[in-house]
Amino acid sequence: MSETLKRLSEVIESRKPANGGDPEKSYVARLFVKGDDAILKKIGEEATELVMAAKDARVSADKSKVLYECADLWFHSMVLLAQFDLTPQDVLDELARREGISGIEEKASRTAD
Amino acid sequence: MSETLKRLSEVIESRKPANGGDPEKSYVARLFVKGDDAILKKIGEEATELVMAAKDARVSADKSKVLYECADLWFHSMVLLAQFDLTPQDVLDELARREGISGIEEKASRTAD
Amino acid sequence: MSETLKRLSEVIESRKPANGGDPEKSYVARLFVKGDDAILKKIGEEATELVMAAKDARVSADKSKVLYECADLWFHSMVLLAQFDLTPQDVLDELARREGISGIEEKASRTAD
Amino acid sequence: MSETLKRLSEVIESRKPANGGDPEKSYVARLFVKGDDAILKKIGEEATELVMAAKDARVSADKSKVLYECADLWFHSMVLLAQFDLTPQDVLDELARREGISGIEEKASRTAD
Repeated sequence: MSETLKRLSEVIESRKPANGGDPEKSYVARLFVKGDDAILKKIGEEATELVMAAKDARVSADKSKVLYECADLWFHSMVLLAQFDLTPQDVLDELARREGISGIEEKASRTAD
Repeated sequence: MSETLKRLSEVIESRKPANGGDPEKSYVARLFVKGDDAILKKIGEEATELVMAAKDARVSADKSKVLYECADLWFHSMVLLAQFDLTPQDVLDELARREGISGIEEKASRTAD
Repeated sequence: MSETLKRLSEVIESRKPANGGDPEKSYVARLFVKGDDAILKKIGEEATELVMAAKDARVSADKSKVLYECADLWFHSMVLLAQFDLTPQDVLDELARREGISGIEEKASRTAD
Repeated sequence: MSETLKRLSEVIESRKPANGGDPEKSYVARLFVKGDDAILKKIGEEATELVMAAKDARVSADKSKVLYECADLWFHSMVLLAQFDLTPQDVLDELARREGISGIEEKASRTAD
């Protein structure tokens, strides 16, 4: 796993109330205390904001907001993963598994280049 | 960056029509040919499906769908990044930058453990 | 209730398999046969498309797409209501109830005109 | 148009700053002052909350939350319509137009009953 995902995943894990996360000091601890619905609402919000940012980027020719909103969406989906005791590594493993399945198509396409 | 994100990012990049991606053979190439709106619709769809999967997982006690839908969401957000010539590394850099900003809080929390 | 909402609500109701709706002939009957998840995915999709349409309308100065996508969203939320044996009238009653609650503010604002 | 939609639409219209809406006193006036993005975020949020409410209703057998969240979604889409100087009547006209288009299918289906 990337060092950043690993570290971020550890920080998020440490914010769980059971691990000493303090909702008075930490935004992520507050999300954990509020529970599933608060985290899921953020998934919906951040996805909407990513869509809006992509539309804006075509007008402003500034794609930095696409980056920020994608980071927000990945961050909150990592909080959701932690809420279900899943890790970014589990997601990467699933993505690797799928890529493996379509590996023949991929190799064919590379040969065709 | 994780090896999986790097390889997946390269595969997605290779599916751009400009890089020889063939919409008759590749789903990702079809998304690129259809353009922004097709990709953004998928972001909205996959976010909704992740929310539904999380709700279902509390009933079925099977969290594998949360994992699959999160993988789908990350995958399609990587297609969106590629559409804007951004990479997962850019997102990881942004996430690392933010974690750095809140680093003092993080260190305090680690000391407290 | 508006005549259109009433008629549309009746048509949707008639599309339920239990009421003779035929999934081979009717899109709404197919949604009912597929069940909750298919309808909920459409809610997420249509909301995303409404957001995209509003962004597009500021660039094109053509707001007709906002209208079409809002009609799509209302239509699919009426299918969801029917799936739960609720009606548009129930939603209108709830909206009227809320307006009543804030009626004092509303009257003050009208007096101020 | 239904009396409720008409009245609600007038109240929303009166909350526009240009019509004397006061952001210090009215939530809708605050949305108008914040502009498109604030309203569009609410569309995304309320759609997500409707999806969550429908999932919850299958567990709790209490469908009142589906009703409340649908009312929220319709309400905020009425604010979006007003932001584009469109009305619920425009949406109802569009829905009636579509039903007319599929009128033959509808009549056939009714005869079949």
